[in-house]
Amino acid sequence: MKTKSLLLLIVLLWPLSVLAAEMSPVTEECLDCHRTATPGIVADWERSRHAQNTMEEAINKPDLKKRVSLAKVLRPSARVVVGCAECHTLNTKEHKDTFGHNGYEVYIVVTPKDCAACHPTEADQYTQNLMSRAYGNLNDNPVYHNLVDTTNGIQSLEKMMTSLTPPNTETNADSCFYCHGTKIEVKGKKVRDTSMGEMEFPVLTGWPNQGVGRLNPDGSMGSCTACHTRHQFSIEMARKPDTCAECHKGPDVPAYKVYQASKHGNIYSSLNKEWNFTSVPWVVGKNFTAPTCAACHASLITNDEGDVVVERTHRMNDRIPWRLFGLVYAHAHPKSPDTTIIKNKAGLPLPTELTGEPVAKYLTDAKEQEERKRNMQKVCLACHSTSWVEGQFARLDNTIRTTNEMTLTATKILLAAWDKGAASGLDQNDSIFNEAIEKKWVEQWLFFANSTRYASAMAGADYGAFANGRWYMSKNIQEMLDWLNFKLTETKKGKKRR
Amino acid sequence: MKTKSLLLLIVLLWPLSVLAAEMSPVTEECLDCHRTATPGIVADWERSRHAQNTMEEAINKPDLKKRVSLAKVLRPSARVVVGCAECHTLNTKEHKDTFGHNGYEVYIVVTPKDCAACHPTEADQYTQNLMSRAYGNLNDNPVYHNLVDTTNGIQSLEKMMTSLTPPNTETNADSCFYCHGTKIEVKGKKVRDTSMGEMEFPVLTGWPNQGVGRLNPDGSMGSCTACHTRHQFSIEMARKPDTCAECHKGPDVPAYKVYQASKHGNIYSSLNKEWNFTSVPWVVGKNFTAPTCAACHASLITNDEGDVVVERTHRMNDRIPWRLFGLVYAHAHPKSPDTTIIKNKAGLPLPTELTGEPVAKYLTDAKEQEERKRNMQKVCLACHSTSWVEGQFARLDNTIRTTNEMTLTATKILLAAWDKGAASGLDQNDSIFNEAIEKKWVEQWLFFANSTRYASAMAGADYGAFANGRWYMSKNIQEMLDWLNFKLTETKKGKKRR
Amino acid sequence: MKTKSLLLLIVLLWPLSVLAAEMSPVTEECLDCHRTATPGIVADWERSRHAQNTMEEAINKPDLKKRVSLAKVLRPSARVVVGCAECHTLNTKEHKDTFGHNGYEVYIVVTPKDCAACHPTEADQYTQNLMSRAYGNLNDNPVYHNLVDTTNGIQSLEKMMTSLTPPNTETNADSCFYCHGTKIEVKGKKVRDTSMGEMEFPVLTGWPNQGVGRLNPDGSMGSCTACHTRHQFSIEMARKPDTCAECHKGPDVPAYKVYQASKHGNIYSSLNKEWNFTSVPWVVGKNFTAPTCAACHASLITNDEGDVVVERTHRMNDRIPWRLFGLVYAHAHPKSPDTTIIKNKAGLPLPTELTGEPVAKYLTDAKEQEERKRNMQKVCLACHSTSWVEGQFARLDNTIRTTNEMTLTATKILLAAWDKGAASGLDQNDSIFNEAIEKKWVEQWLFFANSTRYASAMAGADYGAFANGRWYMSKNIQEMLDWLNFKLTETKKGKKRR
Repeated sequence: MKTKSLLLLIVLLWPLSVLAAEMSPVTEECLDCHRTATPGIVADWERSRHAQNTMEEAINKPDLKKRVSLAKVLRPSARVVVGCAECHTLNTKEHKDTFGHNGYEVYIVVTPKDCAACHPTEADQYTQNLMSRAYGNLNDNPVYHNLVDTTNGIQSLEKMMTSLTPPNTETNADSCFYCHGTKIEVKGKKVRDTSMGEMEFPVLTGWPNQGVGRLNPDGSMGSCTACHTRHQFSIEMARKPDTCAECHKGPDVPAYKVYQASKHGNIYSSLNKEWNFTSVPWVVGKNFTAPTCAACHASLITNDEGDVVVERTHRMNDRIPWRLFGLVYAHAHPKSPDTTIIKNKAGLPLPTELTGEPVAKYLTDAKEQEERKRNMQKVCLACHSTSWVEGQFARLDNTIRTTNEMTLTATKILLAAWDKGAASGLDQNDSIFNEAIEKKWVEQWLFFANSTRYASAMAGADYGAFANGRWYMSKNIQEMLDWLNFKLTETKKGKKRR
Repeated sequence: MKTKSLLLLIVLLWPLSVLAAEMSPVTEECLDCHRTATPGIVADWERSRHAQNTMEEAINKPDLKKRVSLAKVLRPSARVVVGCAECHTLNTKEHKDTFGHNGYEVYIVVTPKDCAACHPTEADQYTQNLMSRAYGNLNDNPVYHNLVDTTNGIQSLEKMMTSLTPPNTETNADSCFYCHGTKIEVKGKKVRDTSMGEMEFPVLTGWPNQGVGRLNPDGSMGSCTACHTRHQFSIEMARKPDTCAECHKGPDVPAYKVYQASKHGNIYSSLNKEWNFTSVPWVVGKNFTAPTCAACHASLITNDEGDVVVERTHRMNDRIPWRLFGLVYAHAHPKSPDTTIIKNKAGLPLPTELTGEPVAKYLTDAKEQEERKRNMQKVCLACHSTSWVEGQFARLDNTIRTTNEMTLTATKILLAAWDKGAASGLDQNDSIFNEAIEKKWVEQWLFFANSTRYASAMAGADYGAFANGRWYMSKNIQEMLDWLNFKLTETKKGKKRR
Repeated sequence: MKTKSLLLLIVLLWPLSVLAAEMSPVTEECLDCHRTATPGIVADWERSRHAQNTMEEAINKPDLKKRVSLAKVLRPSARVVVGCAECHTLNTKEHKDTFGHNGYEVYIVVTPKDCAACHPTEADQYTQNLMSRAYGNLNDNPVYHNLVDTTNGIQSLEKMMTSLTPPNTETNADSCFYCHGTKIEVKGKKVRDTSMGEMEFPVLTGWPNQGVGRLNPDGSMGSCTACHTRHQFSIEMARKPDTCAECHKGPDVPAYKVYQASKHGNIYSSLNKEWNFTSVPWVVGKNFTAPTCAACHASLITNDEGDVVVERTHRMNDRIPWRLFGLVYAHAHPKSPDTTIIKNKAGLPLPTELTGEPVAKYLTDAKEQEERKRNMQKVCLACHSTSWVEGQFARLDNTIRTTNEMTLTATKILLAAWDKGAASGLDQNDSIFNEAIEKKWVEQWLFFANSTRYASAMAGADYGAFANGRWYMSKNIQEMLDWLNFKLTETKKGKKRR
């Protein structure tokens, strides 16, 4: 009995006794100073798996339990834990932000290319992810770029008309590009006074930033820390919806809010404290009892017998048949993650015509959409019957169609406004985003139709009803019409202003 | 000492050793397949009390600890746990969705009538709950039905005027009726390929749905899983505000948001991880230190000595003197849960006149209101002094009066718009919800006055100030007036549009 | 081995064995009745440190671990725990709400002056905190007072014009003054029937209230329970952002929402269940891995070696260089917590001119701003590099400048509206908040510019982009211009209304 009770105690206490694996001598040297200089992130790192496992240990796990995707150990460093030096001194030659630091060459910005040393499959999938192109897809598309300018720019008043000064890069980095990612470049060096005396550091533009499509000093795109937050790199965090919420919460893309208002979100909020967020693979029913964002869109999920429900993916639209995010209308996902290549018939860089027709050439076809839908439904079917799931997806199809129709009506009013000279648009070679009725039009698809579609997709009906949903779609159309009529009345009195 | 340490260990480890009670042979057979077919919900159910307790055990608890309301054991099945078969094969004859499935007659949609087998008091109270009538109260009331149509319908543009196509049932199921409940009907059968070969299933319309007033295939109304989520049926979940939030969060009824902004919500958010959400009865101060929605509106609460503070109820307005949800004005709760019977003097199916007077005949009287208030105050008084509680309720009374006055002012502007021909309303036999000024009027009472009243009732002042509260009530009146004047200007120029 | 396992058990179980310290006889007598009368708050108090520690114990801790700031024990009561009597009978002579209660003189409203008996430094700092003056700063400033009146007042319609009845004190207590604090006065006495028979109690106006600038019956200002909620007085709660959210969540000051959308908020939401919220001092990296509101603005923070990162402060702007909350423009923090003394050149009681220039005389100078910035940056630097932190603060500077420019543009449109007679403002001796265009102007700075600045300061970009951020600043200017033009059209037709 005595022995047994002791054994039980050992089992109970085991998790407390984490034996530190060996660090590389360089990492040890980093820590010598940084324990004092930046205690917060060192403590974070010490909690991470990176601090507790060597690459060799990680690679020798059974396939389903693996968190790395490298096939075999490639370098001697595989026998030490993944510390400061293992990430920040790995590819110094490719990094323009490399600098001499206490006798070592180190760089500041760790990138997907660096993470690929151990996670090559994930890094590769991510290059196929729209997100990895989020900087260029926004910045290099003239239409979207103009939306950024008219949103973030400074309007001045002169003679009762406004003129626009485009936003500077600091403003953009604080707004759209916080999520889309900034362009990080090295602009010289600077000597700073530190607790260790004077030291020289590179000066970076676009810094700090952890946006999903960041342009990095080594030429790579993206930022793994957008979701796998430094320096704990907690899989628990990546699997919790709060992480996605950083960029998927606003009125343009209220995925998080919709989730919180859904039954899934309700279960999560009420019961997740009992779930296991760190297990790999993630076992449905056992580790979690309702999906989070990650469960549906990214994670490797199995049942308790180890059968794979869905595979892990870092191309986030692998299980998404439709791009609900209207540009201007909801449409099939683009084939290429680089959407700057798209041109519609009217010559605009948009995946749909202004009147709604998809620009099929650049978009995934029906067969691919069907396959993605089937993949997503595998997750649903782990808990729900086929009739439940079919009913759910039929509603989404209906919502995509009806919201697109409501966007079309709003667009027709806008086209009339341009046609009647109440506003200046494409024909006048003017911005399509800078006047009040144009901004109302944007809200129709970017806020209200999007919100309604997300609400339908994730069954968080509030956001398809009164909370930025159908109520606002319906009201906005009446207000656009009224605006147009008021404007025509005003115009006829001989006063035209912008 | 050895023995003592062992005893301590047993106490520590006891909760881990849940001994499974016996399942019925039919349930065992269900699980044989469904463990693989739908592992998520089976795992959920295994965590539930239903899987761990027999009806007999449940019924033999002391009164205050009972979670069932049946007086005595009525059937042999009382000696097995409540599994698949106990719920899905109980009343097959009444269920139009019953179908042959692997040699058994089963049905899909478990209803309040089924739950009543063990929880008859709760099911009965629920039939007196407004919520149980949420489908008909919305759908069968011509005024509210028109609000649904004008909100969810598709507007098309022709000759610079909009025409409305009413929403289809899929759209409505995705919007208002997600919470109110759909009408579930069996429309034929369908053979599906399953992992067990070809099988035939009923085809249901209005499915999936878990709305509170669902019309079920057995003729009953409501859905217990709206709050007691399948298949864990966790009382913890029903007691947490996230559950109510699914339907009480939007701008029309921001109860959850108000709670979160209140001191009660603050205590809950900060400290609830230490609370006991599963104890029956729920002991104030010991199990929880601030009320959740359930504590004030539904739960059985006692003090630590076992004295009842308030009784359990599933007629949610038992402790509510006022219906804060304005239709059009806040008013005493209707006597009958079926509100389609109400008609005001003007012949409209509304509990108040358009000018604010309550339609007293259909509403609870002052005495009943007083009693409900006293019941609610019993909860408050478990922590607060009488003078605190009286101060709180005096403020609510004041807020009901002042918000109703602000609704009246908005209504007068609307009536003027109709009168002056700037909009078409009752006299023109036109919808009262389809024009811009009418939609602004709706927001006055449905969003802003409601929000302000909830804020006052639950002391979450933000929602009575700048967050959809008094600020917007005040602004909206000015905007309604301006709209009317702009419209009259436009109209006088000979252009009348809708 | 046996002994060791026993020792381990003792260590494991130790936290469960809290030995109650001694209560004063008077407190014991209070509890005799109040355990039954108000069981919730008694249970709350029993969980508090006040119930478990004597003043003597509290004062004898090492400096960094101290939660009291009194230098030495001053009174015999230091040997009992801090119970009912220790707070509610301490300064009866100064309290106008003192009354005879079961043979004792007690008062209802415990104030900062009472808390100062043990926490004098905190109470003193708090008198230097803007918050302590929140009642007068709002109520006694004619401009802000008018904002309250026009927001909370009742508008009536007569002859198609609105007239305003100022709000009563109940309405104000339910709205602005819920957070700002009410004025609590004793208006007579009242005999109540209690479970102990008839008893007499003072009648208080402005009660209940826990606003930060409450005017108390002992002449003091503020309410410690606004953040240190009665009767648990949990430091965990004060350190969690939900507490600040009660008043810092609305569209005027969305600090909580911004935090939730930031990386810091993401880390908090995902991982805080593992943090230690009760340790004093609060050790960065060890007790918490991302800052909460308290970490940046109030708490004493050290590293694991006990070096102080930042000192505890209850003057909340000690580490804030800018007052982001625009009145009308963002500006340096006022020198005095009493802002009613401020007058700008135009004679308005505002810290900036209507055209944006700061009223330097009343505001902290650049040197003081720099010092506050340095203090804040000490927190940042516990995890981030200097270049990261400098980049972050450069963005905030940019955002302050650009949002102020957008406020100026909106103001110019308003000035034009007044000038052209489209609205009535300062020159007409009319409210500057009561017309539609004036309310739009208020939203420009109070909602949209504020939101954008908070988003920048705390890196929650959503609220600087589409969520009440730059999108709305930009749209609002166009709508203000349109309103002005529509109004001028209407006016020219000879119909002037307000």
